[in-house]
Amino acid sequence: MSETSQTTAWADDPLALARRVAAGERRALARAITLVESTRGADRDAAQALLAALPRHETTLRLGLSGSPGVGKSTFIEGLGCALTARGRRVAVLAVDPSSTRSGGSILGDKTRMERLARDPAAFIRPSPSGGGLGGVARRTREAILLVEAAGFDAVIVETVGVGQSETMVAEMTDVFALLVGPGGGDDLQGVKRGVMEIADLVVVNKADGDLAPAAARTATDYAGALRLIRPKPGDPEGWPRAMTCSALTETGVVAVWDAAEALDAARAATGAKARARRAQAARWFRFELEEGLRAALAAHAPSADLARAMERAVAEGETTPAAAAQRVLARFLEL
Amino acid sequence: MSETSQTTAWADDPLALARRVAAGERRALARAITLVESTRGADRDAAQALLAALPRHETTLRLGLSGSPGVGKSTFIEGLGCALTARGRRVAVLAVDPSSTRSGGSILGDKTRMERLARDPAAFIRPSPSGGGLGGVARRTREAILLVEAAGFDAVIVETVGVGQSETMVAEMTDVFALLVGPGGGDDLQGVKRGVMEIADLVVVNKADGDLAPAAARTATDYAGALRLIRPKPGDPEGWPRAMTCSALTETGVVAVWDAAEALDAARAATGAKARARRAQAARWFRFELEEGLRAALAAHAPSADLARAMERAVAEGETTPAAAAQRVLARFLEL
Repeated sequence: MSETSQTTAWADDPLALARRVAAGERRALARAITLVESTRGADRDAAQALLAALPRHETTLRLGLSGSPGVGKSTFIEGLGCALTARGRRVAVLAVDPSSTRSGGSILGDKTRMERLARDPAAFIRPSPSGGGLGGVARRTREAILLVEAAGFDAVIVETVGVGQSETMVAEMTDVFALLVGPGGGDDLQGVKRGVMEIADLVVVNKADGDLAPAAARTATDYAGALRLIRPKPGDPEGWPRAMTCSALTETGVVAVWDAAEALDAARAATGAKARARRAQAARWFRFELEEGLRAALAAHAPSADLARAMERAVAEGETTPAAAAQRVLARFLEL
Repeated sequence: MSETSQTTAWADDPLALARRVAAGERRALARAITLVESTRGADRDAAQALLAALPRHETTLRLGLSGSPGVGKSTFIEGLGCALTARGRRVAVLAVDPSSTRSGGSILGDKTRMERLARDPAAFIRPSPSGGGLGGVARRTREAILLVEAAGFDAVIVETVGVGQSETMVAEMTDVFALLVGPGGGDDLQGVKRGVMEIADLVVVNKADGDLAPAAARTATDYAGALRLIRPKPGDPEGWPRAMTCSALTETGVVAVWDAAEALDAARAATGAKARARRAQAARWFRFELEEGLRAALAAHAPSADLARAMERAVAEGETTPAAAAQRVLARFLEL
């Protein structure tokens, strides 16, 4: 048999593919992620068989990282990733890019952003899946997390930009969530989006180097003050959420961010909170899939979907009430 | 005909009831709210006919007000309500009480909390509906807003306590959202829930009187600092969201809160943002009703509901993936 047909043979057999992923084979991992990213019906079935056959690793750390463009996210991740592989960790970097639902992706679109890490044999970088809406992108990234963990990557970084609900989606698939920001005094901090402060375990002020060092320290103090206004997540140790500074450029304080995240993760693991959180995430993800499925079924039923659009307009114009409009659409849909 | 049978006659005729509500008859308004609060199928149909027949008033101001127990919410609302009726406004006070989904309600459970306002002929106070979960309570309060507005109440205050999603629900049915807090220095502010800062247009520090006045001023400054970290709602004028102090006890600064809310509301009305926000609220409410209806239909179908419970457990234990589990439940449900 040729190399090509052998490749095809295992690639088309979900159980064989799962075994090769679990053996840490990079080509199998890449192929497996491509499979879970496919929206073809037969591929979805194969992907679910693959995922069901994977070994589970519960002691990995999944770090969510958000930051606006220009804040130094790539440099931070590259510095952190290389430091972790130097410590013997295996590092996977995934992305949830809301813009990829339209354009095909901008963050992690190529590996030139993180050349050094991309060449590191203990690291695996994968750009954001594209298409299918943010829900679809998030689902495929969640599934990619299971794949990279099965392949032995125990430090998983999921990055996103601060757009729409992408941060909440990433927080819902990771153990610890960090927000990377730039230095800025007082009113410059207005750029932080409503709702992100509430999900962050860590706010990291980057660019704490050279001229910007004092501003970065001030900004961290401001964030620390703002974080004190937020109720800690139940059961978390004293001092969380917290604000830190780092310089991705000079690689100062970067690994300290990981160490802090790991300390929080270990505290949560010790009380069982980490396992509970992952179970709750999985259950919420199931309910999300179920609701998405119901919505998709209604949207795929043309008479119901047409009526729903007409009713939404009528409701917005005050011509009928939301409850009455919903009843009409439901009656149509359930009489399929 | 006796008085009783006449009452029954219009109470059972949604269109006649709508006319009497629109004429500002208090007994008809109370009866109409009882009708929209009923969960009986026939009453729901009559309630939707009633709501569809009501006149709409787009220039009312709906103020959402949240605050923990003990923060002085009742005293604040009573002082504000009486000041507004003295200005010739007609004031309705409604409530969304999450605890009423179980216990039958605690806030606004009787009118003795606001005796002076309850006796005011230009005011209308209604306790929280009870039962049906927070979604059900919120729906009936939304419908009560339409009723009191149709009856000529142009200043609508919807109060809630800071529990669960109740604040988000109230923000979703009002034009301006205010958070009432007590004075407290530094670490005392930790009590503010994640996510509430992001929806507040106004944080009002109450008890700015006597010994507590300096602490209240400091607390307002702290909140102003925290609010600067939050991106303003798109299109809002400079200086929003904002923090203020007041004393409900001495009735100092209470009407200033209303005036500030009214100024924000007027700015939004001038740009069309208010009308757009109300249309968007109605459209989201419709989609919420539709999704609730789909969920309820699945929950009412015993084989699907049983399978969903089993699948949620299997997903949490890692025995299957959320997507595969959801597909199984959907296949069962849609083959009804």
